[in-house]
Amino acid sequence: LSATDSRTLLDGLFTGEKMRALFSDRARLQAMLDFEAALARAQARHGIVPAAAAKTIAAHCQTEFFDFEALSREARPAGNLAIPMVKALTALVARQDRTAADFVHWGSTSQDVIDTGLVLQLRAALRMLESELERLSDSLAAAAKRHGDTLLAGRTLLQQAVPITFALKVAGWLDAVERDRARLNEQQARVSVLQFGGAAGTLAAFGSHGLEVAQTLAEELGLALPALPWHAHRDRVAEAASAVALLTGTLGKIARDVSLLMQSEVGEAFEPTVPGRGGSSAMPHKRNPVGCAVILANAARVPPLVATLLAGLPQEHERGLGGWHAEWETLPQICLLAGGALDHTIEIVDGLQVDAERMRQNLEAANGLVLTEAVAMALAAKLGKPAAQELVEQACHRAARERRPLREVLAEDKVAKQHLPAPELDRLFDPRRYTGAARALVERVLAQRGRKK
Amino acid sequence: LSATDSRTLLDGLFTGEKMRALFSDRARLQAMLDFEAALARAQARHGIVPAAAAKTIAAHCQTEFFDFEALSREARPAGNLAIPMVKALTALVARQDRTAADFVHWGSTSQDVIDTGLVLQLRAALRMLESELERLSDSLAAAAKRHGDTLLAGRTLLQQAVPITFALKVAGWLDAVERDRARLNEQQARVSVLQFGGAAGTLAAFGSHGLEVAQTLAEELGLALPALPWHAHRDRVAEAASAVALLTGTLGKIARDVSLLMQSEVGEAFEPTVPGRGGSSAMPHKRNPVGCAVILANAARVPPLVATLLAGLPQEHERGLGGWHAEWETLPQICLLAGGALDHTIEIVDGLQVDAERMRQNLEAANGLVLTEAVAMALAAKLGKPAAQELVEQACHRAARERRPLREVLAEDKVAKQHLPAPELDRLFDPRRYTGAARALVERVLAQRGRKK
Amino acid sequence: LSATDSRTLLDGLFTGEKMRALFSDRARLQAMLDFEAALARAQARHGIVPAAAAKTIAAHCQTEFFDFEALSREARPAGNLAIPMVKALTALVARQDRTAADFVHWGSTSQDVIDTGLVLQLRAALRMLESELERLSDSLAAAAKRHGDTLLAGRTLLQQAVPITFALKVAGWLDAVERDRARLNEQQARVSVLQFGGAAGTLAAFGSHGLEVAQTLAEELGLALPALPWHAHRDRVAEAASAVALLTGTLGKIARDVSLLMQSEVGEAFEPTVPGRGGSSAMPHKRNPVGCAVILANAARVPPLVATLLAGLPQEHERGLGGWHAEWETLPQICLLAGGALDHTIEIVDGLQVDAERMRQNLEAANGLVLTEAVAMALAAKLGKPAAQELVEQACHRAARERRPLREVLAEDKVAKQHLPAPELDRLFDPRRYTGAARALVERVLAQRGRKK
Amino acid sequence: LSATDSRTLLDGLFTGEKMRALFSDRARLQAMLDFEAALARAQARHGIVPAAAAKTIAAHCQTEFFDFEALSREARPAGNLAIPMVKALTALVARQDRTAADFVHWGSTSQDVIDTGLVLQLRAALRMLESELERLSDSLAAAAKRHGDTLLAGRTLLQQAVPITFALKVAGWLDAVERDRARLNEQQARVSVLQFGGAAGTLAAFGSHGLEVAQTLAEELGLALPALPWHAHRDRVAEAASAVALLTGTLGKIARDVSLLMQSEVGEAFEPTVPGRGGSSAMPHKRNPVGCAVILANAARVPPLVATLLAGLPQEHERGLGGWHAEWETLPQICLLAGGALDHTIEIVDGLQVDAERMRQNLEAANGLVLTEAVAMALAAKLGKPAAQELVEQACHRAARERRPLREVLAEDKVAKQHLPAPELDRLFDPRRYTGAARALVERVLAQRGRKK
Repeated sequence: LSATDSRTLLDGLFTGEKMRALFSDRARLQAMLDFEAALARAQARHGIVPAAAAKTIAAHCQTEFFDFEALSREARPAGNLAIPMVKALTALVARQDRTAADFVHWGSTSQDVIDTGLVLQLRAALRMLESELERLSDSLAAAAKRHGDTLLAGRTLLQQAVPITFALKVAGWLDAVERDRARLNEQQARVSVLQFGGAAGTLAAFGSHGLEVAQTLAEELGLALPALPWHAHRDRVAEAASAVALLTGTLGKIARDVSLLMQSEVGEAFEPTVPGRGGSSAMPHKRNPVGCAVILANAARVPPLVATLLAGLPQEHERGLGGWHAEWETLPQICLLAGGALDHTIEIVDGLQVDAERMRQNLEAANGLVLTEAVAMALAAKLGKPAAQELVEQACHRAARERRPLREVLAEDKVAKQHLPAPELDRLFDPRRYTGAARALVERVLAQRGRKK
Repeated sequence: LSATDSRTLLDGLFTGEKMRALFSDRARLQAMLDFEAALARAQARHGIVPAAAAKTIAAHCQTEFFDFEALSREARPAGNLAIPMVKALTALVARQDRTAADFVHWGSTSQDVIDTGLVLQLRAALRMLESELERLSDSLAAAAKRHGDTLLAGRTLLQQAVPITFALKVAGWLDAVERDRARLNEQQARVSVLQFGGAAGTLAAFGSHGLEVAQTLAEELGLALPALPWHAHRDRVAEAASAVALLTGTLGKIARDVSLLMQSEVGEAFEPTVPGRGGSSAMPHKRNPVGCAVILANAARVPPLVATLLAGLPQEHERGLGGWHAEWETLPQICLLAGGALDHTIEIVDGLQVDAERMRQNLEAANGLVLTEAVAMALAAKLGKPAAQELVEQACHRAARERRPLREVLAEDKVAKQHLPAPELDRLFDPRRYTGAARALVERVLAQRGRKK
Repeated sequence: LSATDSRTLLDGLFTGEKMRALFSDRARLQAMLDFEAALARAQARHGIVPAAAAKTIAAHCQTEFFDFEALSREARPAGNLAIPMVKALTALVARQDRTAADFVHWGSTSQDVIDTGLVLQLRAALRMLESELERLSDSLAAAAKRHGDTLLAGRTLLQQAVPITFALKVAGWLDAVERDRARLNEQQARVSVLQFGGAAGTLAAFGSHGLEVAQTLAEELGLALPALPWHAHRDRVAEAASAVALLTGTLGKIARDVSLLMQSEVGEAFEPTVPGRGGSSAMPHKRNPVGCAVILANAARVPPLVATLLAGLPQEHERGLGGWHAEWETLPQICLLAGGALDHTIEIVDGLQVDAERMRQNLEAANGLVLTEAVAMALAAKLGKPAAQELVEQACHRAARERRPLREVLAEDKVAKQHLPAPELDRLFDPRRYTGAARALVERVLAQRGRKK
Repeated sequence: LSATDSRTLLDGLFTGEKMRALFSDRARLQAMLDFEAALARAQARHGIVPAAAAKTIAAHCQTEFFDFEALSREARPAGNLAIPMVKALTALVARQDRTAADFVHWGSTSQDVIDTGLVLQLRAALRMLESELERLSDSLAAAAKRHGDTLLAGRTLLQQAVPITFALKVAGWLDAVERDRARLNEQQARVSVLQFGGAAGTLAAFGSHGLEVAQTLAEELGLALPALPWHAHRDRVAEAASAVALLTGTLGKIARDVSLLMQSEVGEAFEPTVPGRGGSSAMPHKRNPVGCAVILANAARVPPLVATLLAGLPQEHERGLGGWHAEWETLPQICLLAGGALDHTIEIVDGLQVDAERMRQNLEAANGLVLTEAVAMALAAKLGKPAAQELVEQACHRAARERRPLREVLAEDKVAKQHLPAPELDRLFDPRRYTGAARALVERVLAQRGRKK
């Protein structure tokens, strides 16, 4: 296609190479041709098409024989890509065997080949995502094991709350990634179904043999045969897209956390340093979260695309007008953006730089406020909850006002020091002693993952 | 709440009664109180809370003791409903037993109660939808059985294509409904998990006993205990919402078909006639597809709401800022709209009026054009595909131009009549003979459904 | 870029050639280079950059000097396209003049060039859409003039209601198109503003001369100088996108109507017949609304993309993380889809085939029911509204039940015939006499349009 | 309505009181009744309805006469609220004057009253938002004036970049708010148009007098008369909703900034302290950005709702099926969420607590890195850009590695100290001297605002 038309300068940034290959023009066309080849073979097995014709047809189902520019041009008046593709394939076959040409696409309809082609691409995309997710999962599991003692502030509504471990944060990511992996695996099975119904879903061109041909065709392509053709029932496709969107959301969650940790004023974790990465020409000190920016952008772009698919479900009669067409670029785009986000996430997690020292400093910078819950619980056991809360609240305000450690303020308080002598206070203000079930929770996640493997 | 504030005049139209009960203010508050009661009981079982205190707390966890208007007012500065609810519950308990009051909400955080409350509501909603879907499925199965011989035009891109049976159309709806039912069933299990993590997900207030309490609490509520608290990982909720959106899309598909069939110029099927339904004061002849309008509206409104949830996944650290809050009304709204659509669909399918005679007329009105595929296939077997298509195409144009039946035109055509003598033409132009695998496909759907029951 | 990566096979179908040229990779890069050239010239005018250096820089601001593949590759680690572009431009300039190279991009930031480049592309896109809309408007005005006497059924909720003229329907489309045209014109002015703020919006690199340089730069590019740089305030861009979405919605409305009119059972208007257009290989009689399918698909795809931009508005501090990045492909896609929809609409409206005879037949096929309002109003004047409505309603039911004309039924009714003698009935059942203000309304639209021209 | 059905517990949190009043059930019904009263009066002025009848009708157009529960119940089979409302109004009038009852809603259609009612509500909502925005604008202008010398770090991609003033940040908010205000003002004019077309937009019930009645009716309601009825052309409504969404986005931007500034590790600005606001029962030290959370939630919820309206534009023929119905709750919800966000923003901006000292500390904590651009520009003038950048980059890395001030590192560097003697370095490292055009830019915004007032 002419250079004028291309829009791929940003592909390197937002999408990943493997997914681009799965959703290239070439891959789209090849998936459609795989259907045509399989159809011919299946029909040959049922004696509907002569074996020689099937062979000739299948031999021409290779993208290198096709003129992409012509296909693109002719798709406009035709209204889809299948019509010019079938025409071109027929012409190719006819050059070698006129009779065989009669059997190209026999008994099928445009939607059969377009949808099945899409299913083949989608299956490959889901598999690829699943396998890449396994890599990410391994990397996260390693990080979770490494950081069981790395303390940092747990933050709720962007405020320091109580201490957690970095392992717990990572385990949260990992647990979500594992759910996404399971979902993608499930979706592969659900969406890997043949589309084959002929003109309006009755397979009428095959008389009473439609179902047998369909069964054989499904086997040829390694797809399941659904109860019915699903020309105007698109829930499987929309469901698979939702699963991909859930994954993208998980990746966005990881990127959100990393980018917040990477803030100048926080500085607890960083995207890997790679020459040329995240720099700023004007400000050489900057270390921009460029990978996170892309992941968050993609996580923002995917959900509305899923809404497009969901909103397109109420399609007309036996073939939708517009709702179906809206899928053709939307579904690939969802996969491409998810794939791009995943590539960046893997790169970030693999090379994540954790500054445990800074995590500790930030925890301490709060002057112990992050341990008020611990103190309040300890006092409540002695004074009752209302009195304890009142006391701690006053002490917190005083500590904040005077910018002094809360421990110091409490050590001076008559009531507090009566119930919490110095050693007790030391214990309470040791964040390592206030991580509750963090370790056990991380182990649960790792164990669960181990069982799945 | 004051009348000024209410916005429920349209609730009767867009939502259903059962779902409204599940997502009423009362139900929201009760679900949260159920958490508090179960928490107290669970802690009592572990000796953290005195048994008497737990009993007193649980006894006050009833919505009738609460001032809804005050809760609503206080939720604004507090930032959520849990804070004023816990305060009010504590005050209620304190009136009877000051010590017990100290144990209200012990070791928990606002998000624990809000999320678990939501999960309890959502589980009930999914169950309700599943059970109503079973009703719909029964009704559709009966219709599919009834209409195995009811012929009508299959329509693709809003054009008559080839004949189908009404049973096949209904089987398509039924098959989709069955997939939705299976999805809702699955989602119930996936989303029915406890939320319990305390301040930042470590359950630190319970020292090393957090997980035991969590396990007992989950049992009290009949929920599963997830590997980790999921304060900032919302994929389960978004996934359940996606499943509900897929269902709404299926209902939209049914409504799309019914409303198109109900057009003045088509007139093949109708929403049930009920006094006061679908009338127009100015135009007494009109029979408006009022149920379809609502279903289609709801099917258009739900997908963007799901996008809100998906886009909210990248939440901040241990508790999100805004993304979490955006769920509180969005998720109920998704369920309410789905429930409303389902109520209307059940009503329509239960009372659907099918005009088989008009279906036949419309099929015939096409002057046989709807059987061109049949003729083309028959001729192709004799003349080869290109010659056959050329011949049929010319005949079609002539039939259209002269507004004569295609059969007549072909009967006059020299080549055609040579290959297709009159009895053969009669056979080809009998739509009953060109429904291919329709019957077998319908049976597949019914059999599959039978196996599931 | 390698063939593997391209995804343009469907571009011919969904987008239009002119818009593709405006949003090609080449155009994107050139718009950015136009900024760099103008920046150098502006700075030369203020003595910041030597005149010779500015000239050398500007001379290299041509896309043919750049390696697109390298730019795409390097954009990934850099996080945007500006960094490798500036690097490449600097190297190009350095080869000729090392000193000049120092002044490339001087005092600017990546976002200045990316945003201003986008503004330049967007301005061109809005202009193009506006000018194409003028063509569409002319075509619609001609159709409205031509069809002032073409009667058809007005349809509400897909039911025949009362007669209208085809001119009135077209005038509705035209009036909306004129509103869209006015909006695009306005948006051109609003969005055509310079982005120029340097590192964080203070233009600090220019000391106290920043605003002067900005003013000159704006003039060089024919853009307005906004009160402030708008790095993290994206409402102008989102507003322009909304205007484009409103246009796409209008085109979708036209396509909706045309596709419904084109149904086999309605057959009142058709997309133009062009060889190879809308055919079906298996069903030569079919005349698919292929243009409408694309327009409706695009009108479904654009709104969620606008939601992406709107949801991205709450950006972080002085430059957003993700929200900004999400615009880079989304905004072009919105324009491309709108442009594609507009191309198809122009083609359809220019060649629209109207079957006035079929319109009349469909109106009559309702057996006069479409004139019940007329009859009810006439009787109400004599019997009072309740009695009149009751009478007409009964007559309608009887007409429908017995499939007889309503006029006949009324002529037999004792009460009706007393108040509505035959000539009166004839008048009431003449649809030409029941088009109310249709003519005047059409004239209003045409007159309003005339005033604007 | 029964308590079971209400869902308003969270209204206090997410929406504002004034907007709730404008979109209450009562307000919805009253706006519809205002239409009916005005219609009767307009028709009386044209002699179509007896003056006494019009008076009687108008006298009953008060919500207190209506049974809301009955209306809600009957809206379901009717498919809209207008039908039971007209029926109830007719019955009310009939009790007093049987003849007058015949003239209720005369010549009108459900959509006329529903749409015009909505327009009246929307106009009030836009006015209210505009007037509240003026308050916000005043408050922001005051803050911008106050903080012209308050330095803080400008942050791009969440990294400190170069110094800015807090006034500049506030001016960015203010400038956006002013654009939103102008947009709302414009939209009031655009959307304040009568809907009046009768059964299918021809006003046929009025014979040739339709337009005159329409003109008078528009005057009665203070609305403009559009060229045509717009039953199935909804762009005006969607455009107004887009403007409201843009405003919500601006508010989200303010909330984003405030919540980031309020982070424990940043601590530069805070939501106002109000008793009971933003507290946490378990963690008395916490100061949650509760207002920001709501604003961000609402800014996330509104865009998909706008997508619903935009996607609904392609409506069917003379009255849409579903697309129209989807507006009824969606448009109010957009306004309610925007109003809620605005209320919170006003509260936050009015009471915003700015910690200028902490801003300065954070700027200094970067050890001068935030001034690298200044240094690099100064050195570039002497060494050329590449050498200068190389030198500064190395110094930055060393400063970061050794956690020493950049100024110190540069003072030791042989080349640097040769070109930048100590006083020059002092000047360069004074952030007050590196705010470029900040002051001038703020003045531009304030001056522009002054001109508008």
